[in-house]
Amino acid sequence: MTICTVVGHVWATKKENSLSGLKLMVVREERGGRKTVSEYVAADLVGAGIGERVLVVSGSTARRASGGDERMVDSAIVGIIDSLEVDREHASR
Amino acid sequence: MTICTVVGHVWATKKENSLSGLKLMVVREERGGRKTVSEYVAADLVGAGIGERVLVVSGSTARRASGGDERMVDSAIVGIIDSLEVDREHASR
Amino acid sequence: MTICTVVGHVWATKKENSLSGLKLMVVREERGGRKTVSEYVAADLVGAGIGERVLVVSGSTARRASGGDERMVDSAIVGIIDSLEVDREHASR
Amino acid sequence: MTICTVVGHVWATKKENSLSGLKLMVVREERGGRKTVSEYVAADLVGAGIGERVLVVSGSTARRASGGDERMVDSAIVGIIDSLEVDREHASR
Amino acid sequence: MTICTVVGHVWATKKENSLSGLKLMVVREERGGRKTVSEYVAADLVGAGIGERVLVVSGSTARRASGGDERMVDSAIVGIIDSLEVDREHASR
Repeated sequence: MTICTVVGHVWATKKENSLSGLKLMVVREERGGRKTVSEYVAADLVGAGIGERVLVVSGSTARRASGGDERMVDSAIVGIIDSLEVDREHASR
Repeated sequence: MTICTVVGHVWATKKENSLSGLKLMVVREERGGRKTVSEYVAADLVGAGIGERVLVVSGSTARRASGGDERMVDSAIVGIIDSLEVDREHASR
Repeated sequence: MTICTVVGHVWATKKENSLSGLKLMVVREERGGRKTVSEYVAADLVGAGIGERVLVVSGSTARRASGGDERMVDSAIVGIIDSLEVDREHASR
Repeated sequence: MTICTVVGHVWATKKENSLSGLKLMVVREERGGRKTVSEYVAADLVGAGIGERVLVVSGSTARRASGGDERMVDSAIVGIIDSLEVDREHASR
Repeated sequence: MTICTVVGHVWATKKENSLSGLKLMVVREERGGRKTVSEYVAADLVGAGIGERVLVVSGSTARRASGGDERMVDSAIVGIIDSLEVDREHASR
């Protein structure tokens, strides 16, 4: 799961049927520090709001999490992060 | 799902049978800003046109979206973006 | 499998049901040297502690390792590394 | 699908059984311009030759395209590109 | 499949059960030239030795190659490269 911040919404009227009813949000991922920031779209499964830090799953796991193999989703928000504790001795940089 | 812009078409006469009848388009993805722009080919499932911003799914989800597990596709356009609202306070960079 | 160091914990009260009961840890991966370091979250399946080097699997393999296809996990710690022997003649740099 | 150029062949006598009989070719991918060029090996399913531009699929789609779930392939050439038309107004960089 | 060099071994006493009996090796991949070198761990299915160039598969294909869907592996060595012939006219750089 990647750690992302919810930064926006996206609307698409013309879309594959199985996406109807899903809330699609723009998330920003910082996997490798500022240089490799990326923004993409994830289906929100937990009621996340703008500015919240969330856990995002990808690939076939996101499809399954979104309601079964018929949902054409490859990225989904599956948790809202309450707290994150990183040991800077080991993660320093 | 990634946010892409449709930038072109690709034609292939000699191809795996299951690709017949699919409209193959070149999409440009900007996941991490200009430095990591990438262009690749996606099957268009929603009637997208050149210059439109679209949602693209990858991997096994794209294969399923394209008509079942027998379609040899790993990238597909599943939505045309009407509007995209990003909160610059949280996404600033 | 990627070689990671466990660097932290993450807590999420509001989450997809299938994540309940899983210990979620922050891992740091160094696939390509210092420049491409990335931190993300993995379900701990082997009782790993902060500072330990671990083996992490991704994608559908992580979901299966975490207890079956119903677990919405895409990254999991599956081993604690006792020792790692790299031949510097071949891996030099 | 990614756009690649076929640049070579690879031979492996000692290999997993299911790879027997497959033509393995080295392809060069240019997803993000010159800086992120990568070369890897794909099973050729369409009779591609050195220097030709081709469409390459990855992951479980490549395995299925190569003759079913028992083929241990994760990258396959599924089409030979006849022509590629990219709108430079939208793809300019 | 990616082209890697075997550069080491890894030992893990405490691990997910399905990894028992697998030989785990450290491989170095050079997909995009020296700048994007990465090292990770793959299950060796063909008796590879340190210094040999090998073909490595990833994802669900690696899991299947390693003995079925119950093996918690996402990277596997499936061939030892005898020779690799790359046309420098097309692959120059």
